[in-house]
Amino acid sequence: MSRTTEKRRILGIDPGSVSTGYGIVDAEGNRLAHVHSGRIDARGGAFADRLRRIFEGISAVVEEYEPSEVAVEKVFVARNPDAAVKLGQARGAAICGALQAALPVHEYSPSEIKQAVVGGGRAAKEQVQHMVAMLLTIREPLQSDQADALAVAICHAHTAASAVAMARQAVPTRRRGWRR
Amino acid sequence: MSRTTEKRRILGIDPGSVSTGYGIVDAEGNRLAHVHSGRIDARGGAFADRLRRIFEGISAVVEEYEPSEVAVEKVFVARNPDAAVKLGQARGAAICGALQAALPVHEYSPSEIKQAVVGGGRAAKEQVQHMVAMLLTIREPLQSDQADALAVAICHAHTAASAVAMARQAVPTRRRGWRR
Repeated sequence: MSRTTEKRRILGIDPGSVSTGYGIVDAEGNRLAHVHSGRIDARGGAFADRLRRIFEGISAVVEEYEPSEVAVEKVFVARNPDAAVKLGQARGAAICGALQAALPVHEYSPSEIKQAVVGGGRAAKEQVQHMVAMLLTIREPLQSDQADALAVAICHAHTAASAVAMARQAVPTRRRGWRR
Repeated sequence: MSRTTEKRRILGIDPGSVSTGYGIVDAEGNRLAHVHSGRIDARGGAFADRLRRIFEGISAVVEEYEPSEVAVEKVFVARNPDAAVKLGQARGAAICGALQAALPVHEYSPSEIKQAVVGGGRAAKEQVQHMVAMLLTIREPLQSDQADALAVAICHAHTAASAVAMARQAVPTRRRGWRR
């Protein structure tokens, strides 16, 4: 081999106030391997309890699998402002779960993710699920939020070169300027 | 005195993706005292960095002032879904900052807060600011997000009897059921 390829462990998150999917993918050059995926059930209970489950769920995944970076889908579509606030809250809780370990967080739009996984920005959900299972040689049926979480991880893995530069940028100084 | 009144320290939060206000109020029966208030500046930088400042800012306030409960305004108005997602994210990050200390979190609608602070559900913003300063004998000018954070803390203090019951309900079991 002419040059060493860095091994990266990517945590993909598909946040939702009802269920938050997560997936972990190891990437080494062009090789991808499925490490683990699952979902955090956030149905029922007080709203703070639901956020707590997402926050602690992602924290626990980060602690157990020690990813080196995080990828999450950009959201901008929501049925109404109330649904958007709920989705935003879930997203904030999931990201904070990862921030505790000071991981760089990257965002990708749905069309960037589809482009990376299926090769077309307008692919159907089932196509994404199918390609994720193929790319990671997963034989068990994948639930859609797990598949989406793995898809954003794959998308991030595929943007390797630029991602390394972005990751350096995205790691913030701790406690910079938040206090008066 | 016929019965002991419990002293409670309430952290009020006014979350925002640009600036998050917070205010701490001690409540003992009907007596209120201003302990501290401030704001977390979340302008500029990558979105994850902004969420981190809110999350860590609230964590640090909780660590330093050790509130016994948290009150936050219910949000449902937003200009558009994109703004709603951003507001939701900020709210999720702020609440997760408090959740780390396993504090009960309560929500109040804007009209409940105005009713508690001004005595009318449709009061103007300036009236709320004025009454917050009066009730807590604050002489320095209050920024609006600090005033709003203190207002929700006051609202929570005023719902004392019911709040104690709610707080017990709202403390969730750690890590209940989020894992498959």
